[in-house]
Amino acid sequence: MKYLRINMSHLHYKEDDVPTDRLLLGGRALTSQLIYEEVPATCHPLGPLNKIVLANGVLTGSLASSAERTSIGAKSPLTGGIKESNAGGIAGLKMGRLGYRAIIFEGLRDDFQIVIIDKDSVRFEPADEILGLRASEAAQKLMARFGDQVSINLIGVSGEMKMNTAAVTNLDKDGSPTRFYGRGGMGAVWGSKGIKAVIIDDTGAERNKPRNRERFMDGMKNYALALREHPGTSKVYPELGTAAMVRTTNHLGALPTRNFSTGSFEHYESISGEKMRETILERGGEGSTTHACMPGCAIRCSNIYPDEEGKTVTTPIEYENIGLLGSNLGIGDLDQVVELNRLCNELCIDTIETGAALGVAMQAGIAEFGDFEAAKNMLLDLEKGNPLGRIIGGGATLVGKIYGERRVPAVKGQAMPAYEPRGIKGLGVTFATTPQGADHTAGQTIRAQVDHRSPEGQVEISYNAQHVAIVVDSLGVCFMASGPIFTKDNIKHIANLVSGYIGQDVSEEDIRAMARKCLQTEHAFNRDAGFTKAQDRLPEYMYLETNEAADTRFDVKDEELDKIGVTAAH
Amino acid sequence: MKYLRINMSHLHYKEDDVPTDRLLLGGRALTSQLIYEEVPATCHPLGPLNKIVLANGVLTGSLASSAERTSIGAKSPLTGGIKESNAGGIAGLKMGRLGYRAIIFEGLRDDFQIVIIDKDSVRFEPADEILGLRASEAAQKLMARFGDQVSINLIGVSGEMKMNTAAVTNLDKDGSPTRFYGRGGMGAVWGSKGIKAVIIDDTGAERNKPRNRERFMDGMKNYALALREHPGTSKVYPELGTAAMVRTTNHLGALPTRNFSTGSFEHYESISGEKMRETILERGGEGSTTHACMPGCAIRCSNIYPDEEGKTVTTPIEYENIGLLGSNLGIGDLDQVVELNRLCNELCIDTIETGAALGVAMQAGIAEFGDFEAAKNMLLDLEKGNPLGRIIGGGATLVGKIYGERRVPAVKGQAMPAYEPRGIKGLGVTFATTPQGADHTAGQTIRAQVDHRSPEGQVEISYNAQHVAIVVDSLGVCFMASGPIFTKDNIKHIANLVSGYIGQDVSEEDIRAMARKCLQTEHAFNRDAGFTKAQDRLPEYMYLETNEAADTRFDVKDEELDKIGVTAAH
Repeated sequence: MKYLRINMSHLHYKEDDVPTDRLLLGGRALTSQLIYEEVPATCHPLGPLNKIVLANGVLTGSLASSAERTSIGAKSPLTGGIKESNAGGIAGLKMGRLGYRAIIFEGLRDDFQIVIIDKDSVRFEPADEILGLRASEAAQKLMARFGDQVSINLIGVSGEMKMNTAAVTNLDKDGSPTRFYGRGGMGAVWGSKGIKAVIIDDTGAERNKPRNRERFMDGMKNYALALREHPGTSKVYPELGTAAMVRTTNHLGALPTRNFSTGSFEHYESISGEKMRETILERGGEGSTTHACMPGCAIRCSNIYPDEEGKTVTTPIEYENIGLLGSNLGIGDLDQVVELNRLCNELCIDTIETGAALGVAMQAGIAEFGDFEAAKNMLLDLEKGNPLGRIIGGGATLVGKIYGERRVPAVKGQAMPAYEPRGIKGLGVTFATTPQGADHTAGQTIRAQVDHRSPEGQVEISYNAQHVAIVVDSLGVCFMASGPIFTKDNIKHIANLVSGYIGQDVSEEDIRAMARKCLQTEHAFNRDAGFTKAQDRLPEYMYLETNEAADTRFDVKDEELDKIGVTAAH
Repeated sequence: MKYLRINMSHLHYKEDDVPTDRLLLGGRALTSQLIYEEVPATCHPLGPLNKIVLANGVLTGSLASSAERTSIGAKSPLTGGIKESNAGGIAGLKMGRLGYRAIIFEGLRDDFQIVIIDKDSVRFEPADEILGLRASEAAQKLMARFGDQVSINLIGVSGEMKMNTAAVTNLDKDGSPTRFYGRGGMGAVWGSKGIKAVIIDDTGAERNKPRNRERFMDGMKNYALALREHPGTSKVYPELGTAAMVRTTNHLGALPTRNFSTGSFEHYESISGEKMRETILERGGEGSTTHACMPGCAIRCSNIYPDEEGKTVTTPIEYENIGLLGSNLGIGDLDQVVELNRLCNELCIDTIETGAALGVAMQAGIAEFGDFEAAKNMLLDLEKGNPLGRIIGGGATLVGKIYGERRVPAVKGQAMPAYEPRGIKGLGVTFATTPQGADHTAGQTIRAQVDHRSPEGQVEISYNAQHVAIVVDSLGVCFMASGPIFTKDNIKHIANLVSGYIGQDVSEEDIRAMARKCLQTEHAFNRDAGFTKAQDRLPEYMYLETNEAADTRFDVKDEELDKIGVTAAH
C-alpha cells in the first residue's frame, strides 16, 4: 500500500510506502491526519501551502458492499478550517487496484492540467480542451480520450473559478459524473492547484485481495446480513432513496423552508420521496427508482430521474437536493427541483451550499421565493462567472455578507444541510460543534429515539453520532450503512472485515479509538487555524426567532455545546 | 454630562448622567468600554444585539485646537471585532453643547429615519426623501430643512445597502459632508438600525465651559505652543497636508502599488503632495492648500481641490486616498485620483477599503491596473447596487473571496491603509496586532527613528504607538497632533488641559492607564468574539513574496507579534 505524492508546481511525483502502523488510517481519518501534519493551519486555503489529500477508506477497493468511498481533505476556503468530503463512485476501486491508499497534491499553478495515473507512471496533459465545459460533456470527452474503463475525478467551471461552492465529481459505475465530494469548496482548492481532472487507469493492475481471506469473508457475511436485516438499507432506501426523509422532517418541523425561516412546507407532498417514486415509475423509460453508485452496493439508494419522455434528466435526486433546492426556495414542483439539481451537477457545485446561497439571495430580495426561473438564471449566471453568479458561487455566507442579510443558515461559513436545527436539535448540536462546519454527515441524530425539539441530551447523542460518522467515513463505508452497523452493534463484524482485509488484528476498540483521535486532530487543526468556541454556535436568528412549525427556538445551552466543541478537552 | 440612549426599534430615548468616575472616558476609550459592556461579542453585527456608540472625546467641545473629534463604536461587520472610527467636523461641538458625552443607538429597523436631537427633545422623521441621494445633495436638503447651523451625521447609499465599505459622514465647518468615520463598516451598522441621518441642533444651548478655567488655559497655552513648535503641525501639514507622505513612503518602498505587490510607483511624483500643492495654487479659484475641518484647528492639514476652472471638486485630498486610489490602482494622474475620491465621498464609502477592493479586483483580472474609467465605473456600479457594485462595496476581503484571489492586503478582514508593511514593518506589526483590523491610526510608527525594513524592535515601537493612538482618539485630539504631544513629552500639558476641562485631577499616568485599559478591553472583546493569535498575522503572501522596492518580505516573528496581540497577557 502506497502514498502517491504529486507536486503540481513542478509536475513531479513520488511514491512512499504506507507505514504499517497507519494501515488503519483511511478516508477522513487519513486526510485529516495528513492535513494536520503537513499543512500550516493558518495558511491561505488557495495558496501554495495548502494540500489536497485524496484518500481511500480502509475498506475501499475491497469490494465490501457500500464501501467504495473516497475522501478529499484540505484546508477549506469555505470554512477556513480542516475539511473532508467523501463520495461514492469508482475512483476508489481504481486507486485501490493501483495500490494507492492516498494521493497527495501539493503546489500551485495557474493553468489547468489533466493528471493521468496508471500502473506505470503519472503523466500530465494540458486541460484546455475541456475548460469551461459542463461536467457531462467534459466527462464524455475524457472517456473518449482515455477509454470508458478509467475513473475520472473532475472539477467544473466553478472549480476553475475557485468558487466556495465548487465540488469535485467522480464517475458513478455507469460513467455519469454525478458523485460529488460536495462540501467545503474542495473544487476551489483543486482549481488553485491547476487540477482540472484526475484520470485513474487501472488497466493491467491486479485485483485487491484481502490479506486474511477467511476472516474477511466472515466479516463480509455478517455485514451483508446486517444490511439485509435493517429496514432502512433493505427497504426504505432502495425504494425511496434518501428522499424518504421529506415527510419525516416536514412532520418534525425540520424541513428547511424559505431560507430556514420555518420547518414545514405547504407543498411538501409534491416534492416527497413518495411523489418522486410515483413519477419515476409512471414515466418509465430510462428512469429507475433504485440505482447503485458504487460497484457492488447492496443498498442502491440512488435513482435515475427521467423526463416526460423517459429520458434521463439527472441522477441522483436526494433528500438534501429536495430540501435545499425545493422547500428552502419555496419551490414545490419536483421537475423544477430536478432541473436545478441537474444544473448544479453540470456545474459541479454543492447542491446544499448552492441551495442555501439561493435562499439567502431570496431572503435579501434578489428574487421571490418560489421563483424557479430566477433560481435557474442565477445558476446560469454562475456558469458565466458574471458578478451575480460569482456571488451565488461564493456560497450562503458570502451572499449574506454581500447583501447585508443577517439570516444566513450556516456555521463556520458552511451552509446547513436540509435539517432545520430548531426542529431537530441534535443536528443543531452537530452543526455547531463539528470541526467540519454545518454537516449532517458529520453526526446524524435523526434516528435517535428522543424528543428532537427538546434541548435535553442532544449533546451526548450528537457526540456519539460524530464518532460514528468518522468510523464510516474513514473505513470508506457509505453513511447509509451506519444504521445497520451501529444500531445492531455490528461493529465487531466490521472489525473482522478490516482485520481480514489489511491483515492486522483490529479490534472494535481500535476502530473507536481511531475515531476519537480523528476528532481531536481536527479540533486541534481548527484551534491552530483560529477557531474558538465563539464559532461553535448556530446563527443568532435561530436563538432569537421561533421556527413556527416546530414551535421552538434553538436552546441548547452554550456550556453544553462547549463540552464537545473545539475548546473541549476530549 | 449625560449619555443619551436612543432605541431605534421603538423610537424611544432616555438620558443618564455620566458617572463621575467615567468623566475621563471619551472617544475610543468610551465607545470600546460601552460596546464591551453592553454588546454580546458573538452577536451578528447587523442584528438586534449590536449597538452604536457615538462618543465625544474628553476634550471635544472644549474648543482646544485640533480636539473636536468624535468616535463611532460598534461591533464591526467588516472585521467581526470591536471597532472605533473617528472623524473631525462639527458634530462633537454640537453634542458637547447639548451636554452629551455619548449617544447610544440600540435596536433594529427596516425603514430609515432622520433623528433630530436638540436641547429639548429627540424627534424622528422618515428619511424617504433623501434615500439614494449622494451625500452632498442629501446634506443640502437636510440643511434646507433644518438650517445651516446644525451638525449632520449621514450615511450614503452604501450604508443603506449595509455594505462593509459604508462610512458615516459628518459636516466640516463649512457645511461639506466630507469628514468620515471611515473604517470598519460603521455605516452598515447605522443602516441596519435604520439611521439615515442624525441632526444635532444646539440652538439655545450654552457654550461649554471648563470647570477649572485657569488650569485649562494653562494647558491650552502650552499645548498650542507645542503645535506651533513642531515642524509637522506648523509647516508640513498646513502646506502639503498628509499627502507630504507620498515621497517618504515611495522612498522607503512602502507606497502601496498595484494591489500591494510592491512599494514604489513610477509615477509617484505626479500624485505627490508637492504636485497637489502646485496644482491647487496654479488653478486658484475655490482651491486651497490648507483648510481646517474642525472649528479652531491650528494645524489645518485639509485642503480644497479645484478643477481647471477653479471650482471645488472635493475636500480633502489625503495621503490615504492617493495611496489607495492612486498608486495601488496603478493610477498616476492626480485629477483621476481626485475624481475617485470625490465619488467615494458622495457614496459615503471608506476610501481605504474601497481602493483596496478595487486593487484586489484588478489583481483578479476584473480590470487592468491603471484603468481609471473601469475603477470609476465600478464605483458607479456600487452606487446602483448592482452585483459588481455589491462585491466592491463588500470590501477587499470579500472581493478576494468572491474571485478566489489570495493576494488580499487586509488583516482581520479590514484593508490596509497606504503603508506597504514590508517596507515599514512597525506598521505591519500594528496592522497585525491591533484589535481594530489593519489601521495606521491605531499605531503609526513612521516617525520612529529606526530602520523600517528591519524586523528588530518594531513590536515595542508599535506597542507604544498603539497606546499613543488610544490617547488621542479618546481625548478627541486629532491624530495629527500626536507628534507634538508625545515627541516633546507634552502629555503633562494635555493632562492639565483635561483636568481643567472636566474639573478632576487627572495625571499623565491616569491618561496612560486609560489607554492601557482600553487596549485590554478591546482585546478581551475580540477574544470573546472568537479571535486568536491566528488572526494577528499579515496576509500569507507578504511572508512568502518579496516587495521588490523595499527588497524584503515581512519577517517579524510570530512569537514577537504574540507578545502584544490578542492572546498576550497585557
